[in-house]
Amino acid sequence: MTSRAEDESCLAVAGRQRACRHYTDAAVDDAIITELLRVACCAPSSQNQQPWRFVVVRDDETRAAFGELMREIWERFGRRFSEGTLEPALFREVDEGVGGGGLAKAPVHIVVGGDSSVLDRSQLASSVFPAVQNLLLAATALGLGSCLTTIATLRADDVRALVGFPPEIDPLAIVPIGYPARPLGPPRRNPVESNSSRERYGVPWA
Amino acid sequence: MTSRAEDESCLAVAGRQRACRHYTDAAVDDAIITELLRVACCAPSSQNQQPWRFVVVRDDETRAAFGELMREIWERFGRRFSEGTLEPALFREVDEGVGGGGLAKAPVHIVVGGDSSVLDRSQLASSVFPAVQNLLLAATALGLGSCLTTIATLRADDVRALVGFPPEIDPLAIVPIGYPARPLGPPRRNPVESNSSRERYGVPWA
Repeated sequence: MTSRAEDESCLAVAGRQRACRHYTDAAVDDAIITELLRVACCAPSSQNQQPWRFVVVRDDETRAAFGELMREIWERFGRRFSEGTLEPALFREVDEGVGGGGLAKAPVHIVVGGDSSVLDRSQLASSVFPAVQNLLLAATALGLGSCLTTIATLRADDVRALVGFPPEIDPLAIVPIGYPARPLGPPRRNPVESNSSRERYGVPWA
Repeated sequence: MTSRAEDESCLAVAGRQRACRHYTDAAVDDAIITELLRVACCAPSSQNQQPWRFVVVRDDETRAAFGELMREIWERFGRRFSEGTLEPALFREVDEGVGGGGLAKAPVHIVVGGDSSVLDRSQLASSVFPAVQNLLLAATALGLGSCLTTIATLRADDVRALVGFPPEIDPLAIVPIGYPARPLGPPRRNPVESNSSRERYGVPWA
């Protein structure tokens, strides 16, 4: 059905996915957003309940409100915590993206909810974040920038009010989407060996 | 860097990912498992903390213990709940896979933990399930069967004991990996329109 080379290119897309925190204001067509959502909706979920709910937001005021919400939470809790734990380059990037409004400039924000009327709340994250990752990979494959953010969901009721989610839908993520304003480097990740064990935790995989 | 055709093949892999619940006993080489882990480790995570911890289990006794754990939880809670909610074909498939030991036959089980010493427990799922999804997509791309299961994690301490996770590592998933014993059909998913809204929840996307 697919060639070995094609399959390898899929793995390559995962290898160049990277959080984008600076966007141009070029519009993203509906057809492209539909394609991202289509790929997201292929993901697995507990009992195939597909609890993901997406709201695609282009409205300037709503996006500005998301940006303000993220900025407030970042100023109040995030910055102080992160300044001590992040490496300085990443801290500056996050601080510009969340605190400085870089993310808010993305022309599309996809708000991702989990519907607790179809799955217990304890199962929502494991059945929604695979779909979010599909969405991020599809964006990467199509040359778009994206960023998985969860900070705004600390004020779930504010996000619910902004997009009209009923109480049974939990906001789980907001994903800004747009064209990258700067080239994205490769992701900086620890090697497999640092996170992987053979048979028992702590026995080196390789 | 990549061609449009290559990017489209990445999206196609997402489109043919499907839970596999029947495996041959053909071994899966270490090199292939390493490739799956490498792709998993490319995923995004909160503050790039990469809280995923993988234990690759081939040991017969440990895999049998996972199978027994899943079966017990399924018999006690899952079957009764699922029989009423799942469509009959999917119920039979899950019942054979979890209750009937289909999953336990997979020659490799990857136990996925989230390390609460690097991220708050409230943030682990959103920073671990994207990596799990990368792993599942890589398995699909390479012709392997896989299945995202979380049922065993309802008895977290039992899973911890089986793989030696310390108390600060939460077991979040067990992913059986192997070659499919039967051809996998395409995933059965609701159309994008049923899950997606424009600007406000409930306003049709398309």
